[in-house]
Amino acid sequence: MLKTADNNEKHLLFGGCDTVALAKKYGTPLYVISEEHIRERCREIQRDFLLKYNRTKAFYASKAFLTMKMCRIISEEGLGLDVVSGGELFTAIKAGFPMEDVIFHGNNKSLEEIELALSNDVGRIAVDNLDELAMIQEAAERLDKKTKILFRISPGIEAGDTHEYIFTGHKDSKFGIPLEQNIIKKAIADVMNSSHMEFMGFHFHVGSQLFRYDSHVAAVHVLIRLMEYIKNEMGVSTQELNIGGGFGIRYVEEDESKPLSFFVDAIMESIIQGCENANIDVPLIMIEPGRWIVGEAGITLYTIGSIKEIPGIRTYISVDGGMPDNPRPALYQAKYRAVVANKMGQELEKQVTVAGKCCESGDILIENIKLPKIESGDILAVFSTGAYNYSMSSNYNRLPRPAVVLVNSGNDELMVKRESYEDLIRNEMF
Amino acid sequence: MLKTADNNEKHLLFGGCDTVALAKKYGTPLYVISEEHIRERCREIQRDFLLKYNRTKAFYASKAFLTMKMCRIISEEGLGLDVVSGGELFTAIKAGFPMEDVIFHGNNKSLEEIELALSNDVGRIAVDNLDELAMIQEAAERLDKKTKILFRISPGIEAGDTHEYIFTGHKDSKFGIPLEQNIIKKAIADVMNSSHMEFMGFHFHVGSQLFRYDSHVAAVHVLIRLMEYIKNEMGVSTQELNIGGGFGIRYVEEDESKPLSFFVDAIMESIIQGCENANIDVPLIMIEPGRWIVGEAGITLYTIGSIKEIPGIRTYISVDGGMPDNPRPALYQAKYRAVVANKMGQELEKQVTVAGKCCESGDILIENIKLPKIESGDILAVFSTGAYNYSMSSNYNRLPRPAVVLVNSGNDELMVKRESYEDLIRNEMF
Repeated sequence: MLKTADNNEKHLLFGGCDTVALAKKYGTPLYVISEEHIRERCREIQRDFLLKYNRTKAFYASKAFLTMKMCRIISEEGLGLDVVSGGELFTAIKAGFPMEDVIFHGNNKSLEEIELALSNDVGRIAVDNLDELAMIQEAAERLDKKTKILFRISPGIEAGDTHEYIFTGHKDSKFGIPLEQNIIKKAIADVMNSSHMEFMGFHFHVGSQLFRYDSHVAAVHVLIRLMEYIKNEMGVSTQELNIGGGFGIRYVEEDESKPLSFFVDAIMESIIQGCENANIDVPLIMIEPGRWIVGEAGITLYTIGSIKEIPGIRTYISVDGGMPDNPRPALYQAKYRAVVANKMGQELEKQVTVAGKCCESGDILIENIKLPKIESGDILAVFSTGAYNYSMSSNYNRLPRPAVVLVNSGNDELMVKRESYEDLIRNEMF
Repeated sequence: MLKTADNNEKHLLFGGCDTVALAKKYGTPLYVISEEHIRERCREIQRDFLLKYNRTKAFYASKAFLTMKMCRIISEEGLGLDVVSGGELFTAIKAGFPMEDVIFHGNNKSLEEIELALSNDVGRIAVDNLDELAMIQEAAERLDKKTKILFRISPGIEAGDTHEYIFTGHKDSKFGIPLEQNIIKKAIADVMNSSHMEFMGFHFHVGSQLFRYDSHVAAVHVLIRLMEYIKNEMGVSTQELNIGGGFGIRYVEEDESKPLSFFVDAIMESIIQGCENANIDVPLIMIEPGRWIVGEAGITLYTIGSIKEIPGIRTYISVDGGMPDNPRPALYQAKYRAVVANKMGQELEKQVTVAGKCCESGDILIENIKLPKIESGDILAVFSTGAYNYSMSSNYNRLPRPAVVLVNSGNDELMVKRESYEDLIRNEMF
């Protein structure tokens, strides 16, 4: 992870590349994504889920980080894609991603998006509500397409919530169909009665950045009871069960890094056992990790500018990005760890707070982190920024969005060009 | 504000335009900005501040909302511009904004941004810290430019905090120079000793969205003591005092809409009286409203899609935008009010929650709002979205950013084109 540079300073290596050299070559702020890390995570999914268990599929949740190149990597690794909008779908289409391996999600799909999905023969539509189902039915007939349907179910499980689920309970969520027998029966009947739709099964999502599997297991129990009910009441067997994602990654030292098997083994056991007990066939199981694949694959490089010592209170170091390239600290009070990329191995002598360059007091990236002695011009590397950074980035304060560089075994390749000032006004009429 | 349409439905008028027709013409989500409202606010500033008090200037804080057309309106109304980045400065340059009326702010200006400001003879640089001052000095010499300097001071006042300020107190802020006599004296001496810089005075900013003037007045007292000290110690008189912005606007019913005079009369009185007591000349006073000018000038139009009734809990209505076009509810738990633009005057019969279309449980625009009976296809108008919506917008979930339309006396004009799917992948290498 370290490289000794000519001047005997130790530099952070990432994906085999000298990050200080990357910062110099591409400028900062800079998103750096390790292709190897992404592929390793995909291979862990292959080994510990897809090959280990029969009849399984994995889909990358592209809202975490999406480019056309990312589509290609995911496809090469044999995963499908979970998209949540026309824009994500468009990106996959442009990348030539195999459309049968795409699931289209979203709580409020527009007709235009549904038409785009149908025209491109998207593999599955995860239907969120009955309004949407009617729209799909109408559009599929009109376009003469047949599409496979999963229903997103709101299983009434809060993340971290392990108590016994009550079948008639409701969850206060904008997502999914409430667990109401009549609503679900009607939804399935509508699909069964249509020659343009095929009922495949159910989807649920219990939460994000989880370090436990209890919520998944609790939701599985709910879904098994639902599948049992549907089989007994309607004679319909559920072919597919999509258990979503939410597997946690490491942001700070205290986070436990869990292998995929930690989550899926327990969940699969509860599915297999539960189906046996309920006397139903085990459906094909789908997972949708996003952050888990790409989160730790990314770092952000910043150049440190002003250093401000407020006597007796705090030292602020300011970087050349912040809230516009990483809104997660402001949005979720998310914590990050960081190092000075050009001063690896140096003693951590001082506690500082890392501020962004935005005119916004909430633009603080990291509070109270120990770093080596800082000088203006140092390169700060913030870890675990691969997910929900580039994808959530804005031009707040009219800061151009950073470039994205893909690194692999010492090679670097520009994936997304840095925005220019001209880009900022491109769509303005004047 | 209402228009009776052909079908006897009452439509919301905004800037004299039928908002339902705007939604149809330009699509949704759509930012609609009232030119008249902006100009009225600018004229209130002229009347109740610039003309009422001698030696005053007003600058529009462009981080709230900036386009080239906005620059032109602001310039036509005789205001200057407060910019906080190279991107904002670039926009002003491209718009032909008079550079002598621009103040360049920011806690971590880059050398490239400072050079851009100097080369374009920006009117003032509000210097945040000594590192920056050294950079300006070096660059101004190298480019052979002379620039006017304000120092941003961190006055140790918390917004809403009215207790007596202690001169040696420090504020825990990433912004501004701590109120430390030696640091400030050195900063001023550095400027006085340079043939490329001219010391003009001080700047402070106490907070945002304030409905009281106490913090401004408290900070004024601090600054007057500083000006007095600088005069007595160094024989330097302060020519300009920039008291920032922060004047609150109305988001929800409960917010009190205050005229500008409410703030500036009290502040000016404290300045004039304070300077007299301290026996110093009253400096030229600058203000920097942003939100106050443009916040209530904007509304966002959405089309309502799915409607989800969760029995006994809540009804969610989903719109075709959300967190990507307005991150303020997720960031600050900001509250908004809204109406159904095509059902004005109808009985508010039901309490609902307005959800965005993002795959993110935090993407809720308005919790618990009473609206008329909702049908899919209705147009929701959310008020007071002129500030910090377009400027903070992202492409999260790969949603293209909405168009911005300027309305005035019944005329509409496209100010910013809607992003296309192609725009989303424009900078990708593939």
